[in-house]
Amino acid sequence: MNESRLRVGFVGLGIMGEPMARNVLKAGFGLTVHNRTASKAEPLGEAGAAVASSPAQVASASDVIVTCVTADADVREVVLDAERGLIAGIGEAATVVDCSTVSPAVAVECNERLGAKGAGFVDAPISGGDVGAKAGTLSIMCGGDRAHFDRALPVLEAMGRTVTYCGGPGAGYLVKLCNQICGAVNLLAAAEAVSLAEAAGIDIDAMLQAVSSGAAGSWLLTNLAPKMVRGDDKPGFFVDYQLKDLRLAADAAHELGVPLPTTALAEAIFRAASVQGHGLDGTQSVIHVLRGLKGR
Amino acid sequence: MNESRLRVGFVGLGIMGEPMARNVLKAGFGLTVHNRTASKAEPLGEAGAAVASSPAQVASASDVIVTCVTADADVREVVLDAERGLIAGIGEAATVVDCSTVSPAVAVECNERLGAKGAGFVDAPISGGDVGAKAGTLSIMCGGDRAHFDRALPVLEAMGRTVTYCGGPGAGYLVKLCNQICGAVNLLAAAEAVSLAEAAGIDIDAMLQAVSSGAAGSWLLTNLAPKMVRGDDKPGFFVDYQLKDLRLAADAAHELGVPLPTTALAEAIFRAASVQGHGLDGTQSVIHVLRGLKGR
Repeated sequence: MNESRLRVGFVGLGIMGEPMARNVLKAGFGLTVHNRTASKAEPLGEAGAAVASSPAQVASASDVIVTCVTADADVREVVLDAERGLIAGIGEAATVVDCSTVSPAVAVECNERLGAKGAGFVDAPISGGDVGAKAGTLSIMCGGDRAHFDRALPVLEAMGRTVTYCGGPGAGYLVKLCNQICGAVNLLAAAEAVSLAEAAGIDIDAMLQAVSSGAAGSWLLTNLAPKMVRGDDKPGFFVDYQLKDLRLAADAAHELGVPLPTTALAEAIFRAASVQGHGLDGTQSVIHVLRGLKGR
Repeated sequence: MNESRLRVGFVGLGIMGEPMARNVLKAGFGLTVHNRTASKAEPLGEAGAAVASSPAQVASASDVIVTCVTADADVREVVLDAERGLIAGIGEAATVVDCSTVSPAVAVECNERLGAKGAGFVDAPISGGDVGAKAGTLSIMCGGDRAHFDRALPVLEAMGRTVTYCGGPGAGYLVKLCNQICGAVNLLAAAEAVSLAEAAGIDIDAMLQAVSSGAAGSWLLTNLAPKMVRGDDKPGFFVDYQLKDLRLAADAAHELGVPLPTTALAEAIFRAASVQGHGLDGTQSVIHVLRGLKGR
């Protein structure tokens, strides 16, 4: 089959999913969409997508179905619900591609259940934020059966710039958790450095310049530490989403028997930020729970 | 005074100090050196430096004296010892530049004591390893009186590529501690991500590639995580030196009233690596205390 003739479905048209679906449409794929809150599907309908009333209907019209929701339970409902889920309408040899950040165990389960119907499941969580979703420059980390990954690749390439195949079912979700561990912990490093520099009353811009340029540098130090210094809490990525992802990492660590002490501490610190009212602020607002007296 | 006519002294010709002193000599400054173990000064003597028998003798022959030793007590002894220390021989208006990584409190004390004799003290810790010391590409973070910093600048520029003035006495040491916090914590992030990926049996190179290229990337993930994966423990920077620096950060945090939970945990984890026999291995060997079963 010519790849451009793949019929694509999309379920979950949120802040990430909507622009991703739009990029699929722009790439010339026929598109059928569904969203739990139906009104959010209308703009894509006007742009040329067919609008379906359930995930099952999306599946019955599609060869590759992309899903982009929030938590484990959402993915299970959209994919596996016996009446309205993708599994109720999916064709043999169709491929489900889930871009949510959820537990690796969800991939194993979906892969097994869909596999029993002759279909496949690719876990394909994304990184790059709403800016990357709009620009089609997301980084996409994939796991699952290689043949299903290869089949979905043209659709993935319509949504992202870096698409990495990481291994069997759950490998994509797992790599996303590794990514979230590094992001959260690097951010705490930046926050503690800023907090110490503030308390000492030294030139923080000089500190950031000296540290960023060397072996202790990180993307987050360069990009989010200046927001901490300015007191800009505006969200790029919510504290509560970071907290959710650290919880998933703790679950995976427990399942796999891996001690992750720094990740466990990061979860506790982000929980402190959340309960102190920063859940819907950007992750850089975690500095509020780490500040010495001079920074208050 | 023409800056090239500055007479420079150097005390502490270790793995960092020796090549730094050599670069000062190459830049055309007259140089007088001293090292506690005298034999280590001989090669510089052959290269054209005068060799003195005490720090005090170095001071009496120099306008700017660079010191590069290990711990708080070493700096205090070299600079402040009433008989053999720099202070016993130092001229009015001379400048001591200390490149050790020690407590900010040491800078305050040295600045005060030297100041009483009309001399000055610049804390100027370095980053970039022995490779940077040889190549003259160190990053140097400086604190102290601005006039003394300006005076020492040509000497600093002979040893490093990035020289940053960060504030009053101790600001350089403090920024170095911020640097060591970020380095240690970013390294733990990388180690926990590698450990989780190993335990899950996924493609670790794919994980490193996907994570390094995005918002969770860091210098340490890019440069040291591959060594963890290969089991290469060879030292770039010793675990025991990282541990010493985290202890200094904890002291500074206590003095300044700043909660640094992640830094405190990092100290405990590097201590675990040290007591398990990795003190003179590279910092990447910390992964041995964080590994899940599959990585052992």
